Amino acid sequence: VRSERVVYATGDDAAVVRADGVAVTSIDAQVEGVHFELATHSPADVGHKALGAALSDLAAMGARPGEAFVALGVPASFGDDASLELVESMERLAERTGTTIAGGDVTAAPALTVAVTVIGWAGGERDLAYRDGARAGHLVGVTGRLGASAAGLLLLQGVEADLPEGERDALLARHRRPEPLLEAGSALAGAVVGAMIDVSDGIATDARHLAEQSGVRIEIELGRLPLAEGVEDPQLAATVGEDYELLFTAPPEFVAPAGVEITWIGTAQEGSGLALTHSGAPLELSGYEH
Amino acid sequence: VRSERVVYATGDDAAVVRADGVAVTSIDAQVEGVHFELATHSPADVGHKALGAALSDLAAMGARPGEAFVALGVPASFGDDASLELVESMERLAERTGTTIAGGDVTAAPALTVAVTVIGWAGGERDLAYRDGARAGHLVGVTGRLGASAAGLLLLQGVEADLPEGERDALLARHRRPEPLLEAGSALAGAVVGAMIDVSDGIATDARHLAEQSGVRIEIELGRLPLAEGVEDPQLAATVGEDYELLFTAPPEFVAPAGVEITWIGTAQEGSGLALTHSGAPLELSGYEH
Repeated sequence: VRSERVVYATGDDAAVVRADGVAVTSIDAQVEGVHFELATHSPADVGHKALGAALSDLAAMGARPGEAFVALGVPASFGDDASLELVESMERLAERTGTTIAGGDVTAAPALTVAVTVIGWAGGERDLAYRDGARAGHLVGVTGRLGASAAGLLLLQGVEADLPEGERDALLARHRRPEPLLEAGSALAGAVVGAMIDVSDGIATDARHLAEQSGVRIEIELGRLPLAEGVEDPQLAATVGEDYELLFTAPPEFVAPAGVEITWIGTAQEGSGLALTHSGAPLELSGYEH
Repeated sequence: VRSERVVYATGDDAAVVRADGVAVTSIDAQVEGVHFELATHSPADVGHKALGAALSDLAAMGARPGEAFVALGVPASFGDDASLELVESMERLAERTGTTIAGGDVTAAPALTVAVTVIGWAGGERDLAYRDGARAGHLVGVTGRLGASAAGLLLLQGVEADLPEGERDALLARHRRPEPLLEAGSALAGAVVGAMIDVSDGIATDARHLAEQSGVRIEIELGRLPLAEGVEDPQLAATVGEDYELLFTAPPEFVAPAGVEITWIGTAQEGSGLALTHSGAPLELSGYEH
């Protein structure tokens, strides 16, 4: 896929892209042994996850996806077929999301490393959502269902669970092939949400980012978290990330855009920091601060 | 340094930059054990080299530098002081070249890895120089002096050479801290050169890129290569890269921009491929094809 705005892609020293409005750019790296294991992730999983995680940052801003630039570090043991599978998987996600892979760099490396820079576009800076837009009186909402990626990771790590095969596969897929919520992000930013962030580190950590950047206190009731099929523990959903759902705040009169599933899980208030409650009682989560 | 066009840099999911004209983007990764050794390169050298090599791609297009995004993979053995030294060195080069480091990602990694995406800007696609602009009848020119980086690498590898201390230091510095020729690149693109590329792989390989992309035959006379102080072998200058000088073609009536040192080293003709001569005789360089 190659958009109209791309004048020159690969083949020259740099890609040339017609620009207007604002460019929205993020870089994200995934390293074997740190973010994934080749024992449990196929080359196609790795390619999808690396681009998907990067694009999720554009979703969190409400930007339209534009171009991706990929630096691939490949160990000698990772064959040409595996590299091709990785790149083709990335190309499929790029095509499906309207992203042009417009440049890259391939080098040797001791561990498989995929660094992806994504550039998205918007008409102007006011068309985007930021982490600092939460105000006292806002409600806190989240898209979709939480905890599936964390549960999938536990399954990969060998934790026993009595689950129907289909549910198990769905949890594993959610961990291995995260889906960037570009349309939901764009719809939410267009509906003028307060603050927005993608859930990459877990609700607890990501809500704290919103509270700190916005200068408000955020309270979240764990009993309200929308849990994925097969997930029963809201603490899992709150403390482990990579769901790549969108966490946002909005004034009470906010109307959810059509087609975006939203659950209200808390409120923003005067003050600072994050408070988690469970059935209304204050909660200490061990190890959720980082 | 933070330019006027940067609306939001680090602190959100992505950086937001006001855009116009064309965006010129390149990604480049440097990996310990592949592109440098920590035994011979300080953390400051690594930071400078990673950003410098990436910015050189913008110089080769004639783009104004804009933003840089850095993915840093850091081994446990690489301390916080070393990371800080690396980043500060990168910041110094960024400031000196008018580049804003607008985003980053730091992860653990088995080997020190620095992937840098640079975004430059130009008024329009016609303000840039490309690899495919060489025409039969053009002269082939190069900026500055060649071979210093290759000679510096040989010194690091323990090759004995009877050189004055100052000359030795200059060769080592040239290898460790390559300087992106952003002003010369911009001046040359503004003087409407034919094709342009930076000398990252050696004159032989890079001239071949221009010949192939432009559909012309390029002849280069090795005896004409401008050699750096302390370099005597033109084959070294022709076959080893990382000089980051600019190789370009231009019509005979071309006038060099003020302040840019240029040497004419060959011609572009009807045909295809690259021909190297030495004192007018055809030359086979062992191992220069890759």
